[in-house]
Amino acid sequence: MKTLQDYIDKLNALNFKDMYENDFFLTWDKTDNELEAIWVLADALRFMREHNISTKIFESGLGISIFRDNSTRTRFSFASACNLLGLQVQDLDEKKSQIAHGETVRETANMISFMADVIGIRDDMYIGKGHTYQKEVVDSVTQGYKDGILEQKPTLVNLQCDIDHPTQCMADAAHIIHEMGGLENLKGKKIAMTWAYSPSYGKPLSVPQGVIGLMTRLGMNVVLAHPEGYEVMPDVVDVAKKNAEKSGGSFRITHDMADAFKDADVVYPKSWAPFAAMEKRTNLYAAGDQAGIDALEQELLAQNAQHKDWCCTEELMKTTKDGKAMYLHCLPADINGVSCEDGEVEASVFDRYRDSLYKEASYKPYVIAAMIMLAKCQDPAQTLKALEERGILRKMK
Amino acid sequence: MKTLQDYIDKLNALNFKDMYENDFFLTWDKTDNELEAIWVLADALRFMREHNISTKIFESGLGISIFRDNSTRTRFSFASACNLLGLQVQDLDEKKSQIAHGETVRETANMISFMADVIGIRDDMYIGKGHTYQKEVVDSVTQGYKDGILEQKPTLVNLQCDIDHPTQCMADAAHIIHEMGGLENLKGKKIAMTWAYSPSYGKPLSVPQGVIGLMTRLGMNVVLAHPEGYEVMPDVVDVAKKNAEKSGGSFRITHDMADAFKDADVVYPKSWAPFAAMEKRTNLYAAGDQAGIDALEQELLAQNAQHKDWCCTEELMKTTKDGKAMYLHCLPADINGVSCEDGEVEASVFDRYRDSLYKEASYKPYVIAAMIMLAKCQDPAQTLKALEERGILRKMK
Amino acid sequence: MKTLQDYIDKLNALNFKDMYENDFFLTWDKTDNELEAIWVLADALRFMREHNISTKIFESGLGISIFRDNSTRTRFSFASACNLLGLQVQDLDEKKSQIAHGETVRETANMISFMADVIGIRDDMYIGKGHTYQKEVVDSVTQGYKDGILEQKPTLVNLQCDIDHPTQCMADAAHIIHEMGGLENLKGKKIAMTWAYSPSYGKPLSVPQGVIGLMTRLGMNVVLAHPEGYEVMPDVVDVAKKNAEKSGGSFRITHDMADAFKDADVVYPKSWAPFAAMEKRTNLYAAGDQAGIDALEQELLAQNAQHKDWCCTEELMKTTKDGKAMYLHCLPADINGVSCEDGEVEASVFDRYRDSLYKEASYKPYVIAAMIMLAKCQDPAQTLKALEERGILRKMK
Repeated sequence: MKTLQDYIDKLNALNFKDMYENDFFLTWDKTDNELEAIWVLADALRFMREHNISTKIFESGLGISIFRDNSTRTRFSFASACNLLGLQVQDLDEKKSQIAHGETVRETANMISFMADVIGIRDDMYIGKGHTYQKEVVDSVTQGYKDGILEQKPTLVNLQCDIDHPTQCMADAAHIIHEMGGLENLKGKKIAMTWAYSPSYGKPLSVPQGVIGLMTRLGMNVVLAHPEGYEVMPDVVDVAKKNAEKSGGSFRITHDMADAFKDADVVYPKSWAPFAAMEKRTNLYAAGDQAGIDALEQELLAQNAQHKDWCCTEELMKTTKDGKAMYLHCLPADINGVSCEDGEVEASVFDRYRDSLYKEASYKPYVIAAMIMLAKCQDPAQTLKALEERGILRKMK
Repeated sequence: MKTLQDYIDKLNALNFKDMYENDFFLTWDKTDNELEAIWVLADALRFMREHNISTKIFESGLGISIFRDNSTRTRFSFASACNLLGLQVQDLDEKKSQIAHGETVRETANMISFMADVIGIRDDMYIGKGHTYQKEVVDSVTQGYKDGILEQKPTLVNLQCDIDHPTQCMADAAHIIHEMGGLENLKGKKIAMTWAYSPSYGKPLSVPQGVIGLMTRLGMNVVLAHPEGYEVMPDVVDVAKKNAEKSGGSFRITHDMADAFKDADVVYPKSWAPFAAMEKRTNLYAAGDQAGIDALEQELLAQNAQHKDWCCTEELMKTTKDGKAMYLHCLPADINGVSCEDGEVEASVFDRYRDSLYKEASYKPYVIAAMIMLAKCQDPAQTLKALEERGILRKMK
Repeated sequence: MKTLQDYIDKLNALNFKDMYENDFFLTWDKTDNELEAIWVLADALRFMREHNISTKIFESGLGISIFRDNSTRTRFSFASACNLLGLQVQDLDEKKSQIAHGETVRETANMISFMADVIGIRDDMYIGKGHTYQKEVVDSVTQGYKDGILEQKPTLVNLQCDIDHPTQCMADAAHIIHEMGGLENLKGKKIAMTWAYSPSYGKPLSVPQGVIGLMTRLGMNVVLAHPEGYEVMPDVVDVAKKNAEKSGGSFRITHDMADAFKDADVVYPKSWAPFAAMEKRTNLYAAGDQAGIDALEQELLAQNAQHKDWCCTEELMKTTKDGKAMYLHCLPADINGVSCEDGEVEASVFDRYRDSLYKEASYKPYVIAAMIMLAKCQDPAQTLKALEERGILRKMK
């Protein structure tokens, strides 16, 4: 693509009118056209930034972030996206504000939203909680808007929940699309979403779940690989199966890493915790049973230790398509001999793909900005045109 | 009102020229015209935002916030107000900067103010301290400005001190004015500012004090109700008395909640700590007497527990004017069976007024923005006109 | 100077083209012309702000701050500088993001920089670490830019490292230049950079090192005074010697505070820790030897206590040029009878110079803004012209 008009034309060929004033919870809530609109708009915003054209559509407005877990990458991606569009990030630090669930979610959600155009939430720690909390926030501000309390309904961007990690997976997909030269080229390609050993335990399930829920949409042959006992959420497995049927791709589960890597075009080896264990942990946490949590942790670490052979080695990489599959990771990775003794990936593999991994991450701010803009502008193609005509430089020379 | 010109005309009929380059400590420092200018300008800014007209009067500049107590509502209100006008909030986290009183207040105040247009301070914890600290900050930056150290004098906005909570009470009043259809309609109306039971103790006095200090200005019949022993600051009682005399309203104190609620047009039931106890606590704190503080806490909790019957019940609400007085609260409220067993208000009462309470809170960002603009623009009516003529959209469509 | 054109003409007479897309680590990395460009541009930006002309050259973009030590002054200076140019500050709180050295510096540096135009780092705690870390960050983002991961290379501003504190020393120099009526008037003037007693220990060496490394450039007669055993980094002493030779100034070390003060035009009395001790401490820290660190601390405090007579007294001030040398400090100072019993300076001396000290500090935001602009604009003189012609007010009237 060479001109902004190319992106505008692409957008105009898509139907995404339901995204206006809507929210982003899960990729499988959205139509194919809607997902494509995100990728096209993300590319358009990147094109404009590269050409030093300001994409500031807000003169004022807040982007609220709620991080219920430590975060660097997603925090900076969200801040970058908000800033690119003209919103100022205001972090809701729950430690400073003693917010509890129940009635007060509704209250707090409204109290912080008087001038909020977007709310980004990361809440991935407990099964059955994160997505529910995000829904509760959206219901609250939607009601507040209908009742005339809020002058605008802030749009929710799911920055990771217990079910999906859409900003990550949409960025992953954007990277694959660019590397493969177009969305249509993903059809029939094999992607291996595989478990890998990590000395830590309890990593969220949202990445593998998000990947199998999204990539099956794109006509890919998706293989989910993990040792027995490391099952992901059954509902998402069902989503993946249905998606594959509809898209003409395929979905299967294997307990053999080599099987998954064999002839794969893309590999995504990454640790996660078993869904059943995470559910158990959530219940222990709710019951305040710290001894039970500690025991479970030991159990899980011992279980993990039996699978140190689940590592993305040079040897395995050689078995992929032409020995050079794309290697994906949401970062940070557990790298053998670098960040740990045994981990998810051999150092030489990681090093070879470092640039590619950073490039993969670089799509996230644009994906988030596109999600916001699609919820906030009734005709984003028209807005892009107006921005180009306005011609304000992002940075004076 | 239908057009921006209506607000401009209203502003032009008022005299508030002394607010320019001035500060906001207490409502009773200000003239009636000055308070009215805040309400009119707050409404004008809200009108403009609702009509998607940017009110960004600053291209750069910082809004410094200093919170000496946890805060969500006020923090976001201040951030929203600053953002609406184009200022970037920079929080002075005193834990990260080890600031002490004395000489260093003067130093720090100047060091953070080189590009600060506004400083918002919340310091409500200790009797005799908060207001004093705010004065010290203002004296410091005023001197700094006179001495040519600062290129502008940042304006202070009191975000709550030990004496008054003007941004809250001005927002409360804005809400009443809108509900009653105009400032003039408040004359002769009865408002009950009453103590209510809460399982916590030591809640600030600034809200009841702010309410009796402000509402007596507006020709209202203000009744302050509390159990014996829960007196507020005597100086503020004097202020309320004098205000009532001057405005043609009235002010009285009762120790009977039912008496206060009877035929009231507005009720504001809320817990607070006795002034004398808070003074004692401040002295114990200064003396480093932790055992004394703990003993006082137990004493106060026991004292509170004798007054669980001070609750805003359905029964009491029925005795108000036509059984449907406005119910106000600064939030969060202690709600029976929701956030505590026994609290300030019955759940069904709170639920019925929820929308109204959120609406009440929604005025705060605009009140703060109006306070800033009145201190920063020599002719705010003219500035509104210029903003309208400039016609920049807050959000592109 | 009276008009912006005067500053523009001054800039046009200087050669600073290598600053474009470059970084700022140490003043002695820069040519005389380059340093002068910073002072001229800082003055120009201040002139524009005083004349209410917006200097916002960025419509969007982040200014990342990394503070590995508590900070108020530098934090607000950096925030002010970024805001003045249109960048939004995003703080990388390493506690929230668990960043380690090694591979992850490279990764994190890229992950936070997708939309970062500047990175400001303060890392002054450990000898041999701060500067190295800053270099590592710059190498990482430079590589990221070359590899097409980043769309721009963020510029680094050293907000204090173990070697130099350039934003402080450049602000100090700006203050002297203004007080003396021009850069050329510093030639032949005597400046005493002297150690002074403080009840704390382990204060960074970056200020004395920065001062001797910079002031020797300006033709000044620089005297470094400290008790035996309080030597600064030998490499920087070498830098100072060479600079003095080249500039026609002089540099010498004395162990006699009176000798340094005698006829001095400028005095800068300030505590610091011995370089050798700080090196030892860094090694103990690396070895995790807490007992060793505690023992060293006691040793250093005992050593300090032998030099309580190293204080900037009225008596000593009388011996300076005409008894009224300029008195500099980076603040906060340890003031006798105010912030400590015995400290760096007598209260009456400090009080007399308070305004001057605050003025000194006021240059820092402008110095930082100038550093950023020189790295980001290819022809800053032209940019100033364009800003003036654009004529957007910083604050509407």
